[in-house]
Amino acid sequence: MQAWVDGHSADSLALHNRGLAYGDGLFETIAVIAGRPSLLEYHLDRLALGCQRLAIEADHALIRDELCRYAALLGNGVLKLILTRGDSQRGYAAAAGAIPRRILQGNPAPAYPIEHAEQGVRLFACRTRLAEQPLLAGLKHLNRLEQVLARAEWQGAEYAEGLMLDVSGRVIEGVYSNLFLVRNNALLTADLSRCGVAGVMRAALLEAAAGEGVAVSVTDLSMADLEQADEVFVCNSVYGIWPVRSFASLNWSPGPLTRKLQAIARTLLDA
Amino acid sequence: MQAWVDGHSADSLALHNRGLAYGDGLFETIAVIAGRPSLLEYHLDRLALGCQRLAIEADHALIRDELCRYAALLGNGVLKLILTRGDSQRGYAAAAGAIPRRILQGNPAPAYPIEHAEQGVRLFACRTRLAEQPLLAGLKHLNRLEQVLARAEWQGAEYAEGLMLDVSGRVIEGVYSNLFLVRNNALLTADLSRCGVAGVMRAALLEAAAGEGVAVSVTDLSMADLEQADEVFVCNSVYGIWPVRSFASLNWSPGPLTRKLQAIARTLLDA
Repeated sequence: MQAWVDGHSADSLALHNRGLAYGDGLFETIAVIAGRPSLLEYHLDRLALGCQRLAIEADHALIRDELCRYAALLGNGVLKLILTRGDSQRGYAAAAGAIPRRILQGNPAPAYPIEHAEQGVRLFACRTRLAEQPLLAGLKHLNRLEQVLARAEWQGAEYAEGLMLDVSGRVIEGVYSNLFLVRNNALLTADLSRCGVAGVMRAALLEAAAGEGVAVSVTDLSMADLEQADEVFVCNSVYGIWPVRSFASLNWSPGPLTRKLQAIARTLLDA
Repeated sequence: MQAWVDGHSADSLALHNRGLAYGDGLFETIAVIAGRPSLLEYHLDRLALGCQRLAIEADHALIRDELCRYAALLGNGVLKLILTRGDSQRGYAAAAGAIPRRILQGNPAPAYPIEHAEQGVRLFACRTRLAEQPLLAGLKHLNRLEQVLARAEWQGAEYAEGLMLDVSGRVIEGVYSNLFLVRNNALLTADLSRCGVAGVMRAALLEAAAGEGVAVSVTDLSMADLEQADEVFVCNSVYGIWPVRSFASLNWSPGPLTRKLQAIARTLLDA
C-alpha cells in the first residue's frame, strides 16, 4: 500500500530529515488485522514515552487518528510508523520549531512458516552485543545498527531469530523480539533499563500473565538462567509467541505455560 | 546548493531507505575550500573503514569522483556525504544485492565567531554519556542519538561545544569534535576503541604532531588528566582547532603547542 508522509500519499522524504541524518526518531511496527491496529494503546504508550525521553513534541491524537485510518485501508498486514524529529539543516542541534514528521508504510503480513508457532524455533547465538545506554534503553528508536549487525550474522532458514546479550554478558532479547523464560511455573524476562527494546507484546504479556495469577519477574538474566529454564519463548507484536526449541546445545519443548500465553497473545492481537 | 542522490540532482529520498529506517549507513562532513574537498584522503579512508566494518560494499572510486565534482561546483562551504546501505523492505536483514546510496549535500561554511579560534571556547559539561560499543566505535555512522541528546543540553552562545564522557566516566570527545590535552609538551587524546568518532582532523593532527617530533599518546583519559592539562583544544575537519579556555571550574589559556598545531590544521585544511 502507498505510504503516507504527514497524512499525504508519498514515496519519498526530504533529504534534510533528521531521521536520515541521525536516526533522530522512533518507530512502531503494528500488526493490522481486519482493518484494526492490534495492541494500539500499547504502541501509542511506548511512542509517547519515547517522545518524552527524546523531547519530540508530537501530536499524539493526530497520530492515533492516522494509524486507524491507514489500518482501515490496509485491511490485513503490518503497518510501520516512523516518527522523526523533523527537518533541519546541518548540525546536531534541532531547529527551533522543527515539526515532527509522520511516515506510515503498509506491507503484507509476513508469511512465517506455521512450524515456528507450532514446533518452535532455533535461536542463533549472536556475537554482536548490546551496548548499555540507559538514556535510550527500552525505546524503539531509529538507531538500530546493532540489530542490523546482529541480523547479518546468519543466513538461511535454520534460525528464525538470534539471541543477543549485552556487553556485560546478560541475556537480553532477540534481534526483533523479546525473550521469556519459564522456571517453576514463573515467568522471567530481562530488565531493559540498560539496553534492549521494550516490546509491546512483552508489556501486554506481563500484564496478562499477572492477571492469570502467574508469578512474573523482570530481572537481570544470565546464561545460567537460560540453561535452567523449563520453557523458553520469544514474542513480538506481529507474530505473537514462538516457542524456542533450541539455543546452542540447549533444547526445550513447547511447554504448558508457553502454550497458554501463546493463545492469550493470539487473542491480544485479534482483539 | 542542490543535493545529489546517486549522482543526480534530488531533494528527496525513497522512504524504504535503510538510512532512515535504521540509521544503516555512514557520513562524512567535509570542508570545501576553493572547489577542493579538504583532507579528502582521510575522509575516504575513514569511510572505507566504516564500510568494511558494516559490510557495505560501495564503489569508492565513484564516491571520490563525485565528491571532487560536487566540491568543484560548491566552491566554498561544507559538503556532507551520507552513504546508506541502500533500500530494502521491512526487516533488519538487508536485501541481497542492495545498492548503497550516495547522498551529497552542500551548505555554506558555518559562520563561527572568530573569537572561538583566537581566544578559545568554553566547554559545556554534558550529562549524556557515550555507551561502549566496540563494533561501532570510531565510525561516523548514522546512529547519532547520543549526540542529539547531548547537543540539546545547552542553548545559546556561551558554550561552543560540549564535553562527553563515556558511561564509565572516561573523558572522550566533544559532541562534534575531538579533544586534545597538552601536558609537559606531549599531546594526549582519547582512545576511541570503545566509543567516540575518530575525526579526520584528529588523525591528521596525530600524524603531523609526530612528524614535528611532538610526543603523542592515544590513551584512556580521566577527569584528573583534564585537570592536570597545560593546554586543551578541540578540533574537527571544518573549523580546524579551537583552544579550550574553560570547562566547569577549570581554566586555560591558548598555549604554544595549541597555536602551533592550529596553524598546521589551517594548512591541512587549505592544502
